[in-house]
Formats: sequence, C-alpha cells, structure tokens
Amino acid sequence: MTTRLPADPFRRSIQSVSREELQQYQLERLNQLLAKTLPFNRHYQERFGISHLQLESLEQWSQFPTSTKSEWQSDGIDGIARHHSHSPNRYRRYHRTSGTRGRPMVILDTAEDWDWWTSTWQYVLDACSINSDDRILMAFSFGPFIGFWSAHDACLQRECLVIPSGGLSTLARIDLIRTASPTVLFGTPSYALHLAQEAAQRGISLRESSIRTVFVAGEPGGSIPSVRAQLEELYGAQVMDHAGATEIGPWGFGTADGKGLHVIESEFIAEFLPLDSSITNADPRWRELVITSLGRAGAPVLRYRTQDIVQPVWDRDVSGTEFVRLEGGILGRADDMFVVRGVNVFPTAIESIIRQFPGIEEFRIRAQKRGELDEVAIDIESSEPLQTLLEEALQVQLGLRIPVVPLPIGSLPKSEGKSRRIVRS
Amino acid sequence: MTTRLPADPFRRSIQSVSREELQQYQLERLNQLLAKTLPFNRHYQERFGISHLQLESLEQWSQFPTSTKSEWQSDGIDGIARHHSHSPNRYRRYHRTSGTRGRPMVILDTAEDWDWWTSTWQYVLDACSINSDDRILMAFSFGPFIGFWSAHDACLQRECLVIPSGGLSTLARIDLIRTASPTVLFGTPSYALHLAQEAAQRGISLRESSIRTVFVAGEPGGSIPSVRAQLEELYGAQVMDHAGATEIGPWGFGTADGKGLHVIESEFIAEFLPLDSSITNADPRWRELVITSLGRAGAPVLRYRTQDIVQPVWDRDVSGTEFVRLEGGILGRADDMFVVRGVNVFPTAIESIIRQFPGIEEFRIRAQKRGELDEVAIDIESSEPLQTLLEEALQVQLGLRIPVVPLPIGSLPKSEGKSRRIVRS
Repeated sequence: MTTRLPADPFRRSIQSVSREELQQYQLERLNQLLAKTLPFNRHYQERFGISHLQLESLEQWSQFPTSTKSEWQSDGIDGIARHHSHSPNRYRRYHRTSGTRGRPMVILDTAEDWDWWTSTWQYVLDACSINSDDRILMAFSFGPFIGFWSAHDACLQRECLVIPSGGLSTLARIDLIRTASPTVLFGTPSYALHLAQEAAQRGISLRESSIRTVFVAGEPGGSIPSVRAQLEELYGAQVMDHAGATEIGPWGFGTADGKGLHVIESEFIAEFLPLDSSITNADPRWRELVITSLGRAGAPVLRYRTQDIVQPVWDRDVSGTEFVRLEGGILGRADDMFVVRGVNVFPTAIESIIRQFPGIEEFRIRAQKRGELDEVAIDIESSEPLQTLLEEALQVQLGLRIPVVPLPIGSLPKSEGKSRRIVRS
Repeated sequence: MTTRLPADPFRRSIQSVSREELQQYQLERLNQLLAKTLPFNRHYQERFGISHLQLESLEQWSQFPTSTKSEWQSDGIDGIARHHSHSPNRYRRYHRTSGTRGRPMVILDTAEDWDWWTSTWQYVLDACSINSDDRILMAFSFGPFIGFWSAHDACLQRECLVIPSGGLSTLARIDLIRTASPTVLFGTPSYALHLAQEAAQRGISLRESSIRTVFVAGEPGGSIPSVRAQLEELYGAQVMDHAGATEIGPWGFGTADGKGLHVIESEFIAEFLPLDSSITNADPRWRELVITSLGRAGAPVLRYRTQDIVQPVWDRDVSGTEFVRLEGGILGRADDMFVVRGVNVFPTAIESIIRQFPGIEEFRIRAQKRGELDEVAIDIESSEPLQTLLEEALQVQLGLRIPVVPLPIGSLPKSEGKSRRIVRS
C-alpha cells in the first residue's frame, strides 16, 4: 500500500489567495454562521440587540461588541458557558476549559461542530505532513479537558493509526514507544520534555526511537526557541506547535521556521486590538488577539478577546501560506503578566531563559503582589549548580534581578497536562 | 426537542426470527466474511489449509479448527496478534487486551471494523433504552486497553451527550456527577461500587444523583446477583451488564431479569463445546463458549475458544429476544478455576458469596498450588467483624472450609480498571 496524503486542494488554494479574496470568503462564511446562529442564540441577541444580522463588510463587523471569558462564564451549577445556541440535549461532546485561570467553563459541541473541529485540525496536520502511514501516540489523559480529543479524532479522519495512552505512567509510555513504534508524539511541551528526561535517566535515548515529529500544544513552549531546541535535541525530531482553546477551537499551527504561529484564517477571523492601557512599556508592535470562529454554530466565538498578546506580520512565510503570522507565537497573556519594579515581564519570557539551561529539570515561578507591583522568584531543580548562571542570564536578558532558589530534585510537582509552574500569592 | 430513539427495525426483527432463519442469516454473513478475509489472511490460510471457502451449512463450519488466544499471541516486539488480515498501516485503532492473564495482545481495527464495533454496541444500548437525551459519564481511563472506547463512540453515534473522565480522581468524578448530571454511568462493576462507597463516606448518596442506569462490563460482576443488588441499592438505578473482549468484540448484553447475558447472534455465531475433561465435577449443563464474529474482517474471530464457561438456554426471554441466553452470565473461566480438595470453585462463585455482605469493602482471593490442588484463603477489609459469618456462608454455599483473614481498611489495592482480586502463588 502506498502512502496517501489527503487530497486538500481547497486547504492549499485558500492559503494563496489575495487578502481581499480571503476577506470576501471570511465575510460569506461569517454571514452564513450569523444566519444559522443569531436567530437561536439568546446570549448574542442580547449582546448585539438584534436577532438577524447580515454584514456588508468586515469593517462593519469590527464595530460589534467584543466577547470576554467572564461574560460567558455561567453562575449555574452545571458551569455551561452562556453563549451556547441550543439546549444541552442537542450536543454530543462535553468538555471543560483546563481551569488554569479560575473555575473551568463547560463547552458543548454538536456533532456538526465536532466535524468542524476535526476538519480544521487538518490544516495543522498538513503543516507537518502527517499521513496515513503515521502512528500517533497520544500522551494525553482523555478527561473532560478538551486537550487532544479533537487531535485524536482528526488523526483518525486522516487515516493514521492512533495509539491512546490515557492512564499510563510515564514508564509505561516509554515502553509503548518501544513496542508500538509511533512516528508522531502528541503532548504538552512540558510533558514531552519530562517523558524524554525520564527515558534518558533510564539510559533510553528517544533520539533512537521511531518518533519523527513531536506535536505540542496547550502551553506556549512550542514557539519558545529554547524549548523547541531542547525537544529537537532530545527526540532528534521535528517539533510542531499548535494553538487552540476549548472555548475557541484549533486556531493556529506552527510556522515552517518554528518561530511563530499562523492563524487558520479560512476558519477564523483574527483581529488585533491595541493592548489595554494598563500594560505599560509594551513593544509598540504587540496586540491582543481577538478571534471570530467561522464554524461552531452551537457555541459561536464572536469577537472573542483571547487575552493572548501577539505580534502579527503579513508577509509570505517560507511555508507558503498567506495566513497571518504571529511572530514568536503567543508572547504572553494579558492576565499572566508580572510588573516587576515597573517592567512588564511575561512568564513565557522567563521560561525561555530558564530553558536555555538544559540542566534545569523543573522550575516554578513564584510571584507575590506588593501593591501594584509583583515580586518574582524562581525555584529550580538541577543536578548542576546553575543558580548564579541563571540569575545572570535573567539580568542580562530582562534587565531584572530575579532571585533563583535551588531545590532538591523531585520537590516540584510534575503533571502531564498544562504545567502549573506559576504560583501567585 | 423530543427524545429520539434510534430507528432499529433490523435490530428488532432479527431478534424474533426463527432459529432456522437466524442460522441462514449467520451463514450468509459468515460466507461474506470468509470471502473478504481468507484470500488475505495468512494465519487462517495456514490453519485451514485453504485460501477460499464458502460454506453450505453451519454444521460444516463446526468441523473447522478452533482458535485459541495462545495461537494468536505474537512473539514479536510489537505484540500484534497473528490473525490480522492486513499490514499495520491499513488499521486506524490500536488496542491491547487488559493483560489480566499474561502479556497483553495488540489488536488493530480498520475504520470499517470500528464501525462494526459501534453498530454492534447498539444492541447493548437498545437493551437499556439509551437515547439522545442521555448524558453518559465514562468512568474510564482511555488507555490502550479497549475498555469503553467502543462504548464511547457507540454513545456518540446514538446522539447522546458523552462526558469523558479519563485521568480524574474518584472525588473529581463524584463532583462531575453533581455538576454534569449524567443519566448513565459506564464503569467496571468494582469501580462503580468503589465510586458509590467513596461518595457515601463523604455523606453523598448517589441514589439522589441523576444516574438512572449503571452500565457495567469488564468483570463478571454485572451478572452476579449480589453485586447487582449492591449496585442497585447504592445508585437506586437499573444495572445493565455487557460482555465483550478486545480480541472478540462486544458480543453480549444483559437479560431483562438481570440474571444472564444474551449473545448478539446477528453479529456472532455462538457454539457451545463440552468442557475440557480436566474440569471434574462440573454441572452437566456447563459448556465452553466458542465465538465466531460475523464482522471485523481485519482481525476475524473464527471459532475462538473464549475459555468462558456458560450455561446456554434457548427459550424466549421476557426481554423479547430469541438470541441465546446464558444463564448466570459468564459462570467462570476455564483458566481461572480452583480445585479445592477435589471440588471445582470459580472465583466468581466466591465473589458472589462475599458480595452478600455489603460491609465487606474490599477483598482478595489468595490461591496456592499444592500439586494438582489449590489452597484458597480470602482477605477482607470490613469495618464490622464479618470473618466468621463469611466463613459459614462459604461452607454452606460451596461446601468448603475457606479461611477468611480480616485486614485493616485501606490495605488492599484498588483500581478503576479490572480488579486484580485473585492472587496465585
């Protein structure tokens, strides 16, 4: 049997049309979504003050109110977000946000919306040429957090062999890599690092394994150069980043150079708003990403403020797509930022520096509010004496003195999902 | 929106045809499977000595060699069972047997075979009237063990709302029952008991919950009257049993009276062989179940010796199906049986007696070989002094003195998957 790459003439052609054509396509899709959604969706009817809407231009769209997570958040015991179009029994899939920030929000998907998830994922899988000969190991727990559920189904749709590993220990997964010979690994960046380090401690190099692509999502690591370099080194594999969110959908895929993300503009409208004025000293090119989904009629995402801070660039990427590029991926989150002695610092920037030291096996960023300002310290686990070197690197690269505290190995928590590496008090 | 029950005229009608008509249907399906499979399947070509086969009667079929698990077991590092029809890249789903007995065996499913799994599951879901208004909580870890993966997809196909809970602790699942209001719970019998007991210890009665059906599989408990009674009591819910196996498929569903299983004879041919002569003192009605699948061309199950000991009855069940009924479900496994002072005892029989004492929270059956015979003892965890009462019940009901050892609560292992309650040395 020969290797099959899925036929994707539309997915290819839509990435090379002019911006005017793309926007015309987005407008048509948006009008279809509004026609299908607004007559049934009370939340947006109230927000917009109308129950029918057809737009003549995207400029018009930019005048409508934005949505925020807190507006969607329900007070009800079921936690189902307020912006659903139908009653719960119309839906098939129950998922929750990870709850990294606050109470998890429940989002339901209809069968049709789930098809939209898996079809949209195909752009991401295209970007690293995943094909029907690939064997996909999902290092994921398959709980209510949406995580890689949609990737799982997208890989099945693409005719790969999918190997689930929920409930397995890291050692059992290392053994599964040996016996099942996966070509692709899906996981969070921090779990992928952990898996390879655990293997290395047992004398097993995953460079020698069958894995050719490490697919990461759920944390910013996939676009942080030092994290990517470490993953590439440990696995001897291509690293592919993906961005998505339970409440939004799978909206982005890694650029060919590994230094950023493309927004899948055939399925999402990206707008870039000036940063909130409370964020001082920001790079003038930084914007907040605002997203509108063009599918998911059951829980439509209309002008949603992601809180993700990005730097958009509209030049043709070497990967040959006209989809807007976000330089450096997600630079940080507006609600994650520290203000240390008047300087804005994103945890991702700190992580990027820590990751320059492969000897650091685990870390934790501790932040404490003192009035408007944050005091930040870093705990590290390392078998080498790296405290002073890291403090120097932080001072050189961020212009800040941040104390580093070495801890015995094994003292910091470790999880397969999104790491909880930031502790605020 | 009104409740929809899936249209199932075929599934209903095939359960009321005469045995002759049913066998004619089975023969046609079997010939289709053989035509599709045998020309490609080296394992069966070697076993049968032919690469083309069309049968004129099922009697003819009963002359062909049986299959056993050990014949299928591979020596290769990948553990993929020998009886697959194609090379691995034709398959989409990777699963392993639970490894309760010996090394796990890897079984792959094509997309078409997986559709057969989920369609066959519909008979099981019919039996407890699961419909599109149901919310299904899957208390399952979604690892490589096939477990409830197929049930998960079958419930989606049936348009239920499916709530995955891989990776969640028992407490998190109890909270999910409170917030997501599932109407149906899927789990192993022992995990379902554990979940309700954990809730009770925290003052939460799952009788007050939204759960109306507890769906059990993976262990014999669902057809053991005392286990069923305990589950019905703890949940105030209907209990539905299901039988299936990674290497076979979803072959049975609980009878209406809860005292046995029906074989889904439209998708499986059941044969009943005399027990191995090494099993002495067996009830003369007992047989070993031998199964042929009528689908799953990618890993066909041809005259497979399940090792399950059953007692078949061909009378029309109150649930209105002509499918053969197995009185008491799976009575035991040929390879599980103890011989205690010359008497055959199945662990399920011991479990059934232990479960008559709801005060026993956990137990373990220890068996030690002494020549041809087994010495058996039972460890129990209980807050009440039940040692003597249980010893008496065992003597009355089995005619055997089996020592019972009380242990402090929490000393025995607990797992969400198949319990490892039998320890042999």
